[in-house]
Amino acid sequence: MRIIGIDPGLRNTGWGIIELKSNRLVHVADGRISPPPISLVGERLLFLKNKLTVIIEKYDPNLSAIEQIFVGPGTGSSLKLGMARGVSILVLAQAGLSIKELAPKLVKKTVTGYGSASKDQIKSMIEKLLNIVPKNEDSSDALAIAISAQHVGYDNINSKLLDDNIGLNSAIAKALLKEKNV
Amino acid sequence: MRIIGIDPGLRNTGWGIIELKSNRLVHVADGRISPPPISLVGERLLFLKNKLTVIIEKYDPNLSAIEQIFVGPGTGSSLKLGMARGVSILVLAQAGLSIKELAPKLVKKTVTGYGSASKDQIKSMIEKLLNIVPKNEDSSDALAIAISAQHVGYDNINSKLLDDNIGLNSAIAKALLKEKNV
Repeated sequence: MRIIGIDPGLRNTGWGIIELKSNRLVHVADGRISPPPISLVGERLLFLKNKLTVIIEKYDPNLSAIEQIFVGPGTGSSLKLGMARGVSILVLAQAGLSIKELAPKLVKKTVTGYGSASKDQIKSMIEKLLNIVPKNEDSSDALAIAISAQHVGYDNINSKLLDDNIGLNSAIAKALLKEKNV
Repeated sequence: MRIIGIDPGLRNTGWGIIELKSNRLVHVADGRISPPPISLVGERLLFLKNKLTVIIEKYDPNLSAIEQIFVGPGTGSSLKLGMARGVSILVLAQAGLSIKELAPKLVKKTVTGYGSASKDQIKSMIEKLLNIVPKNEDSSDALAIAISAQHVGYDNINSKLLDDNIGLNSAIAKALLKEKNV
């Protein structure tokens, strides 16, 4: 069971891949797709699509997860986000992957225990859970999305996932405990 | 010079293709892409991408146009629109087409003379300008976008477009005159 998590954006799209091996979450790879900043919207989307396609071909995940769009006061940026999100979802669908959509608050809560955790807090928990240092904030968020999706489970895949989550629950509980003791 | 205009949406994406032949605007084709309504977002975007790719391969336009996103009070629907728009722009960029982005008001004003024209008014003017009946409201809007893009011109293509517009200007003026006399 290998999940790719995506944190889409027109400037930076974070991606992170995890795998569940005998009830343990393992980091596979993570990174960021950043189209040349001066490029046109169409070129950026094409860049994103091509890079994401290559990543999926290379790491061959069988499940995927992406954040639900956050409708904030900045509708302009949300709309740009919508375009990057649409292209990301397209690539995932084209690869035949089930797509789990998760609310940002749920992702934060699942991984850190707080619905309004900062990017730093998320990164710190990802380091504890996966025993790696994420490449950057975007890929850290993407790994959090993947972990959260594994935790929530894919209803339409099989019920085994729910059992698998027990392992993660205890790992998160332990990591949270460490967090408090620091 | 053949332009495809796109009016994107997750439910219905209108498309319309026009050509400029010896200073006359000619209708090439128009239609609507409507993914099965019960399908998931990813499936819809994939459906849209596949159909639009086939249309571009079939009619081989060399320029394209799409409406700028309208940020209205319904941010939820604007975000969905953003995803369909992102995928449409991706397909256009992948086909190597220049993309002209136009504000909805400009499209309406160019084609009907009024910035807040109704869909019916747009359709009626499209019928006069192109001597055809558009297949539906979505394809009528898409044809209006293509006409408007031809009218505004593609700065980065060549300056000949500006001269070509004189022909369209007079056609629009005549059509507007007819409109008033009705």
